[in-house]
Amino acid sequence: MNVASWTLRGIGQVVFQNNPWSGLVILLGIAFNSWIYAAICMVGVLASTLTAIVLKADRGLIRDGLFGFNGALVALALIAFTSEDFQSGAVPSVAMFVYLVCGAAMSTLAFASLAALLGPHKVAPLTMPFVLIGWLFLFAILKFDAIEAGPMAKPVSPDQFSYVAPYVLPTWYMGIGASVGQIFFQDNWITGYIILLGIALHSRIAAGMCLLGAVVGTVVAALFGGPEGAIRDGLFGYNAALTAMALGGIFLVLTWRSFCYALFGAAVSAWLWASVAIFLKPIGMPVLTSSFVIVTWLMLIGQYAFKALVPVPPAESTTPEDNRRRHVAHSPP
Amino acid sequence: MNVASWTLRGIGQVVFQNNPWSGLVILLGIAFNSWIYAAICMVGVLASTLTAIVLKADRGLIRDGLFGFNGALVALALIAFTSEDFQSGAVPSVAMFVYLVCGAAMSTLAFASLAALLGPHKVAPLTMPFVLIGWLFLFAILKFDAIEAGPMAKPVSPDQFSYVAPYVLPTWYMGIGASVGQIFFQDNWITGYIILLGIALHSRIAAGMCLLGAVVGTVVAALFGGPEGAIRDGLFGYNAALTAMALGGIFLVLTWRSFCYALFGAAVSAWLWASVAIFLKPIGMPVLTSSFVIVTWLMLIGQYAFKALVPVPPAESTTPEDNRRRHVAHSPP
Amino acid sequence: MNVASWTLRGIGQVVFQNNPWSGLVILLGIAFNSWIYAAICMVGVLASTLTAIVLKADRGLIRDGLFGFNGALVALALIAFTSEDFQSGAVPSVAMFVYLVCGAAMSTLAFASLAALLGPHKVAPLTMPFVLIGWLFLFAILKFDAIEAGPMAKPVSPDQFSYVAPYVLPTWYMGIGASVGQIFFQDNWITGYIILLGIALHSRIAAGMCLLGAVVGTVVAALFGGPEGAIRDGLFGYNAALTAMALGGIFLVLTWRSFCYALFGAAVSAWLWASVAIFLKPIGMPVLTSSFVIVTWLMLIGQYAFKALVPVPPAESTTPEDNRRRHVAHSPP
Repeated sequence: MNVASWTLRGIGQVVFQNNPWSGLVILLGIAFNSWIYAAICMVGVLASTLTAIVLKADRGLIRDGLFGFNGALVALALIAFTSEDFQSGAVPSVAMFVYLVCGAAMSTLAFASLAALLGPHKVAPLTMPFVLIGWLFLFAILKFDAIEAGPMAKPVSPDQFSYVAPYVLPTWYMGIGASVGQIFFQDNWITGYIILLGIALHSRIAAGMCLLGAVVGTVVAALFGGPEGAIRDGLFGYNAALTAMALGGIFLVLTWRSFCYALFGAAVSAWLWASVAIFLKPIGMPVLTSSFVIVTWLMLIGQYAFKALVPVPPAESTTPEDNRRRHVAHSPP
Repeated sequence: MNVASWTLRGIGQVVFQNNPWSGLVILLGIAFNSWIYAAICMVGVLASTLTAIVLKADRGLIRDGLFGFNGALVALALIAFTSEDFQSGAVPSVAMFVYLVCGAAMSTLAFASLAALLGPHKVAPLTMPFVLIGWLFLFAILKFDAIEAGPMAKPVSPDQFSYVAPYVLPTWYMGIGASVGQIFFQDNWITGYIILLGIALHSRIAAGMCLLGAVVGTVVAALFGGPEGAIRDGLFGYNAALTAMALGGIFLVLTWRSFCYALFGAAVSAWLWASVAIFLKPIGMPVLTSSFVIVTWLMLIGQYAFKALVPVPPAESTTPEDNRRRHVAHSPP
Repeated sequence: MNVASWTLRGIGQVVFQNNPWSGLVILLGIAFNSWIYAAICMVGVLASTLTAIVLKADRGLIRDGLFGFNGALVALALIAFTSEDFQSGAVPSVAMFVYLVCGAAMSTLAFASLAALLGPHKVAPLTMPFVLIGWLFLFAILKFDAIEAGPMAKPVSPDQFSYVAPYVLPTWYMGIGASVGQIFFQDNWITGYIILLGIALHSRIAAGMCLLGAVVGTVVAALFGGPEGAIRDGLFGYNAALTAMALGGIFLVLTWRSFCYALFGAAVSAWLWASVAIFLKPIGMPVLTSSFVIVTWLMLIGQYAFKALVPVPPAESTTPEDNRRRHVAHSPP
């Protein structure tokens, strides 16, 4: 197995792209914002994938980067929420480095456990291993003297933004770009558009759904009067973008019905970002991608009850284009 | 399929009654308290059931009102906890209306997902879709400017009541009636007794267990010194009433053993109402029917390990009377 | 069935020892600290096991004490966290006694439910029934006038300890002993070493892993600068000790790989104790053994995905020594 290949695929898998070139462009996009984050992202993929290799996990899953993407996100989150400057991140101390490598390793075990639990329902663990391990490892972090962590620099709840700022043009184009960037904790709207480009390299439909999801999340939040700062930071949009991709072609064959289903899911994900933020507010913790996972699971686990949807089992899913082609080929004329 | 039939059955299913006349009497009971709630209740059933129809769900389940009852509760909860006057409710704004229709629609997806997850254990989703979606949609609501919501008018935790008020006669007859009313968020003890009548139309045992559950919840709370205001409002009793019905005839064949089991469950549900209230207190959110679902699930999921209980799979459950008759008929003499 | 046998086995099962003599030594260790706790421990085992007998559960499971250990822990926890003096406990009032017997009884139902849910994955419920019921019954307790409970006497979060106290020799030998004692809520390091002796009666490997787990938990917390008081109280170590035992021989055949796996799990359990403490801090509730269960489940549910691990299904697990012997006997030379 080629280390470079599964590392880059691991990065691509965060946005469902099993393609090293997509991963490379995304990595460059992250590096454009901060070299620290780009390096940490690779450390995370390596730590979690090596754990899978040492434990002798399935080589096909390893090769496809499926043990890497949660590790990447765990590592990024631990740096992002303990750095004085959220946007650029900070080089970790030794204790912090050990801690994040262990967190990334745990994400591999969580992935295997969730895959076992969800197996009978043919639903993927998505980024839940990251959310779970991310929360568990973040909650503890401030209690250890050896890890220098100031009060969290990044607002994590809509309450922390002003409600009086008006929506202006940059609210939109920066908010939509930042929505894609925030998937990787990148507070940089240009990085967001570069990531979109990386996705488009492998699947234009996925890139389109990602963009549409970000737009829906941003617009819905605005229509319901969400605070401008949170919208411009992409906080309402990153879960929506992931949900739109997952439901619009990756795990459901793209049809007009699943297209509407995906956009509905994107809108709900935007609302529920605020919801989880409120729930976690007493302990000041971030939402991560939990609202994406909750909404997508709720909309997929029961999928076989709805004949209007055409499920794609995770093991068979490739790109929205391919998934659709195979379905059309197998359907009676 | 007859729209009126599945709408009314959907209302009846909140209290396990697959019967349009029960639904109608309950709806009238709600209307006796507030026309707004009666209308909102129908909107909720319609929104969630139409979602099931559009997605081509099983027609039998739709006909029985099983996609409707969680939608009704989601819609009622969203109005109840955002209205200045909890008792009468308020007509929703356009943004709120869209939001509650989406919430009711999501409850249909949550129902299908929980049904899939619980299928192998032959346990019903109960009102968990409502609790889950209710919480998620309520948490977010205060963060959106377009939804006018003052601070919650209704106390949601025992802490918010005085501990010095003595128990008096109205504590009992009002508390027991209100316990049944609170199942539908109706702060009106007369409405509670009308609902009880609606249940009795279809099953006298179910009505009896509902009443007994409300009594147990109320008495147990009083014996343990719960605050009078909360008891009189029926807050300790509504989960107990639902648990007693579920375990006493609906999902277990009614025998002396399951009768005791149901009353034990009712007492535990009353305690755990306080428990969940404490857990949610930091974010000021209501318990909804979560303690009913938690207790009933804990007492049903493991049911096949206990030979003293006679389970009734959800798909075969009709009324406590019928469930018992079929069991007696099939048992060797 | 012999009452004395299943009672003592129930106590032994808290630390995975299906052996009445182990249970007896542990009980004596508890009595050395406080006669009240020793009596309460037996009340808990009796209440939960009698519930299983009344409901006609599997006699083999009852005989092995598997319906008893969660009941023992629920009863101990309810007394420990409502007594003015955490270390010695207090004799419960009548209302409290009824309440804790009901809690212990509920733990039996929770055990059966979790066993049903986890059955297909060949993973044991561990002490999750206790954690779940313990939390639910503890949250509510302060809201009932009839149960006299002052503000909790025992610190439950690292925040409540000073960060300036230096680590000294007693930090280590008291912290490690107390880690084992805290499994049974015994704030007494000598009791901890007696419990260790009880475990060693039945399995030296288990006792060794328990000690090692406590050491790892204590050392890791110190390396990361955890507060001295919490370390000396054994708060970082009790979950680590349980995790090390569970993964190092009980539910995985002990090999060099699973040995490292178990120590990694122990370190993570120590960190996550702090994590769950932070999560529960707004409502001031204790962690119980939740971080042990979370880590062990995450590391076991996905075990069949990793060929480097040799799982032992719960129904076949006896002692680490036996589990290893049977595996070696069945393996090709």
